[in-house]
Amino acid sequence: MRIVQKYGGTSVGTIEKIKNIAESLVEQKKQGRELVVVVSAMGKTTDALLAKAGSITSKPNKRELDRLLSVGEQETIALLTMALNEFGVGAISLTGYQAGIETTGIHTKSKIKSIDSKKVEKYLAEGKIVIVAGFQGINEAGDITTLGRGGSDTSAVALAASLNCECEIYTDVDGIYGVDPRAYSKAKKIDEISYEEMMEMSSLGAGVMEVRAVELGKKYGVPIYVGRTLSDKRGTMIVERNLDMEEKVITGLGITDNIILTTLKSLENTPENISDIFEALGEAGVNIDMISQTLVEGGGLNLSFTCPDNELNLLEEALDRIRRELGEVQVEEHNHFTKISLVGIGMMSHPGVAGKVFKVFAREGIRFYQVTTSEISISYAIDPKDKERAVHALAEAFNL
Amino acid sequence: MRIVQKYGGTSVGTIEKIKNIAESLVEQKKQGRELVVVVSAMGKTTDALLAKAGSITSKPNKRELDRLLSVGEQETIALLTMALNEFGVGAISLTGYQAGIETTGIHTKSKIKSIDSKKVEKYLAEGKIVIVAGFQGINEAGDITTLGRGGSDTSAVALAASLNCECEIYTDVDGIYGVDPRAYSKAKKIDEISYEEMMEMSSLGAGVMEVRAVELGKKYGVPIYVGRTLSDKRGTMIVERNLDMEEKVITGLGITDNIILTTLKSLENTPENISDIFEALGEAGVNIDMISQTLVEGGGLNLSFTCPDNELNLLEEALDRIRRELGEVQVEEHNHFTKISLVGIGMMSHPGVAGKVFKVFAREGIRFYQVTTSEISISYAIDPKDKERAVHALAEAFNL
Repeated sequence: MRIVQKYGGTSVGTIEKIKNIAESLVEQKKQGRELVVVVSAMGKTTDALLAKAGSITSKPNKRELDRLLSVGEQETIALLTMALNEFGVGAISLTGYQAGIETTGIHTKSKIKSIDSKKVEKYLAEGKIVIVAGFQGINEAGDITTLGRGGSDTSAVALAASLNCECEIYTDVDGIYGVDPRAYSKAKKIDEISYEEMMEMSSLGAGVMEVRAVELGKKYGVPIYVGRTLSDKRGTMIVERNLDMEEKVITGLGITDNIILTTLKSLENTPENISDIFEALGEAGVNIDMISQTLVEGGGLNLSFTCPDNELNLLEEALDRIRRELGEVQVEEHNHFTKISLVGIGMMSHPGVAGKVFKVFAREGIRFYQVTTSEISISYAIDPKDKERAVHALAEAFNL
Repeated sequence: MRIVQKYGGTSVGTIEKIKNIAESLVEQKKQGRELVVVVSAMGKTTDALLAKAGSITSKPNKRELDRLLSVGEQETIALLTMALNEFGVGAISLTGYQAGIETTGIHTKSKIKSIDSKKVEKYLAEGKIVIVAGFQGINEAGDITTLGRGGSDTSAVALAASLNCECEIYTDVDGIYGVDPRAYSKAKKIDEISYEEMMEMSSLGAGVMEVRAVELGKKYGVPIYVGRTLSDKRGTMIVERNLDMEEKVITGLGITDNIILTTLKSLENTPENISDIFEALGEAGVNIDMISQTLVEGGGLNLSFTCPDNELNLLEEALDRIRRELGEVQVEEHNHFTKISLVGIGMMSHPGVAGKVFKVFAREGIRFYQVTTSEISISYAIDPKDKERAVHALAEAFNL
């Protein structure tokens, strides 16, 4: 059986851990698996490289930053391959470029354009374990690029798609939980989750896998397993949605801390106004998340949206521009809000989730300041002091 | 004026030093220099990478070792380029591959086959400072290779040859000295030295520049300057030999410690015998240096040669084979000898250097165990206890 596995930075954080992974790969190989292994940089290597760049400049050239950051994975693939050779097993390391990973788009946030897996296929045919540097590829100009946050997951899923096989993501958690176990200790592990739910969970702060990798898995129908490195404990499978899944109304609960809720009050309700506002926010680089609007008496409009706390400077910049363009606008800002989201494809066939949540919030006396919904999720902005109670009450109500 | 500069590992050992070099490059650029800058890995990076490999295996796969070791230079080029950008100067980093450095031969000891400098020329034409990773290239298989000890010097000289310009090697010494200043504090710096003399000096333990780089410089007529990083003090020019040089009989004195002197006694004097012996030594990988033979009474032959101390195991292996093939052979070994060599193209036109040395040794009561000569050098194996006296007496006698 052919398989692509990915081991994250913590899993290859020490020489000892690299040896342990090599030993496991040798064992898997004996059982007849054809293995392509994607690895990240060892432990805190990337942070250390970023710190070096940071001590030179606050705005490093992105091409050079990609060159610098791509170094960590090159180190890991060489060391893991040496460790496999030491066990007497044929293995070969490939950089992103050598593995045929072609990228496009801006440096530090490139996207995979295509994969030419000829070289990987050739080495697999020779019976070798193929070790690939995650997080990196090569662009049209022949320069090394990196894929941004969670890029190694994306490398692994893309390789699995091009090799037409399953992808296993090994990390330092047991799998995907309905609620972050740090926030709710009784949280249950999910055995099976749909791509769509996982994408909502990823973007809503589940933090285990990057949303782009899940999206890619969905697009190419790659079954993705997420589990703990070198553990026999069963993890989570991410697969196409199926009827069984819809039995369960809510699959997971996501928590995103440190968001800012901004409300612009009594705006004149014209399409130009709204468009100007979002243009100003977009150009300042503010990542807008929850958006809602309500009509007010007299024909005006209240517009609310959220963005991460660490974009406060960008937000203020955008608000200044909005004030210049629209004249005096009344602005209300709440820092440090928390967003709680419930995700589940069952929501599509089970109406009344929102009602059940409102009931829970009313019973617990929890006030929410914003609510938005998608086809398979519903999100609430609440005061952080209510977070723990909200998480526990919702997790119990929906059996997460 | 176009120029290739090389900065060694100590010169780029810290972020502060990298910034200082960037500042100097900016200044040079202002003065109209077209700059191609070859850098090594920061300080002890290569040692640290080797240690990691060593904690996995005592015999790392050489392809993987090259991948691992080439990482250090990639880090430096990114950081130096960022530092230049921070000064507002256009700069771009290139890996060995991107700089068009094609190699051949075995991993970890590859040789430069050719350089396609199109890309470098293009960036120079755009007014950029071009920062190139030393020590590395790419082979026919598309794999990263490294050039072995002193490889960055070779990268720099080869680039200068392909760009038809001068090469400046910046290091942590003021230039080339007639005698190693650590052995003879009154040693004089050499202003100008011929490629041939420098090659002898390199291989005889001057330790400042690798002999391959000098050889390449000679082959392509690249003038090479060797001097201290960021210092105004004048260093040493390595150039074609000229008549002025021949005025001076001896240019330099080389010292090589820790050699083994082996003598095989009373061998039967046949060409096959000698050839078998050197074949056995060569196949065991012993680096033979000084060779001499003397006839003994009765038609036999004494054969002496030296090799480095750290090859004792290989030597013993070869001697075992020689005993097996030639029958019992009487072997005499002296560990920890020191070789003193005098180098100078003036020797060709000034006979009597050997005589003068013998006189010095006789006056000082220094015994030598082996002597060999080349066209421009003469070398003596002596007891290490006599080293200091020999160095001082010879340096004074030849005004080094």
